[in-house]
Amino acid sequence: VARRLEFFFDYGSPYSYVANAQLPALIARAGAALVYRPMLLGGVFKATGNRSPATEPIEAKRRYGGLTLLRYAAEAGVAFRPNPHFPIDTLFLMRCAVAAQRAGVFDRFHARVYPAFWGEGLDLGDRDVLAGVLSGAGLDAAALFGAAQAPEAKAALRANTDEAVARGAFGAPTFFVGDELFFGSDHLRFALRALEAQSA
Amino acid sequence: VARRLEFFFDYGSPYSYVANAQLPALIARAGAALVYRPMLLGGVFKATGNRSPATEPIEAKRRYGGLTLLRYAAEAGVAFRPNPHFPIDTLFLMRCAVAAQRAGVFDRFHARVYPAFWGEGLDLGDRDVLAGVLSGAGLDAAALFGAAQAPEAKAALRANTDEAVARGAFGAPTFFVGDELFFGSDHLRFALRALEAQSA
Repeated sequence: VARRLEFFFDYGSPYSYVANAQLPALIARAGAALVYRPMLLGGVFKATGNRSPATEPIEAKRRYGGLTLLRYAAEAGVAFRPNPHFPIDTLFLMRCAVAAQRAGVFDRFHARVYPAFWGEGLDLGDRDVLAGVLSGAGLDAAALFGAAQAPEAKAALRANTDEAVARGAFGAPTFFVGDELFFGSDHLRFALRALEAQSA
Repeated sequence: VARRLEFFFDYGSPYSYVANAQLPALIARAGAALVYRPMLLGGVFKATGNRSPATEPIEAKRRYGGLTLLRYAAEAGVAFRPNPHFPIDTLFLMRCAVAAQRAGVFDRFHARVYPAFWGEGLDLGDRDVLAGVLSGAGLDAAALFGAAQAPEAKAALRANTDEAVARGAFGAPTFFVGDELFFGSDHLRFALRALEAQSA
């Protein structure tokens, strides 16, 4: 069995963005396969009763969460700036992600969407903006949008989200090595150890 | 100005116990002074509205918190076992800690209390048990208990707790390098960088 790291994420999660930037080096080091699992973070929150750190009601905790995000981004060496349109409804965007996977163009999609969201501060909840970003990356935005609205894409995103919750997720990013769950970019070091402990 | 790391802790916090085990190496590496700041975590929770991870109402999150604690302990190489008496009212114990500081016997006190709490699972909320532990460490339990009940010790513990909250603390362990706050053993690496960035 090949080593596999599953990455459950939502483009609207800045912590997932930071984690994403750390994955190539970690995956190379572990000699593992990275499996992207787009999910709807809002769905995870709804199912579990959890909330975004950005809406944490305890002020000192919310402030520390924002500071932590900046520290993690600096540590990962990734450009980060708060998105002025946050929070953005990512339902359609995440449906596009699963549609891109089904169409075999996910790598190009993924490589462009995260920087646009958390590096350039674009409003990817606006379909015109999103279409422009995708076209600029050489993708067929109209075809992806059509596929994203098909029942198969809707069902696939819902299935990923439900699966994440069923396996114990309560936020993003969430990683799995087998059935073992790791939450947050900060715990990727534990995931790495779990990967390295597996027989290759 | 000498490099200083302030450590706000409560013996009832297992995360603080894990952090405590990591401090000697970190302090030596940074060439810094460690300043122990006993506080009442229950007072911090009351003032901020925060709660113990052990009482987190979202089940998946609470379960992950417990797993995280074990991972942190293993990573720190420190023996840890859940205290069967948890949660323990630590008010008197923390008053004893500040009394031990005032009496100049804190090092011996501290070295014995944490292992008794989170390694041996003793009920240090029970004064007879606590007296036995302290006597076993060569401390004068009766004198410490007397000092812990004096207004000075009560006021000192309250002042530490209030100061922690005023400076942004919402849980334990909380560290400061100057005015910069670091929460959790996991963020000690950022505190180390802040210490190293200071001119010695």
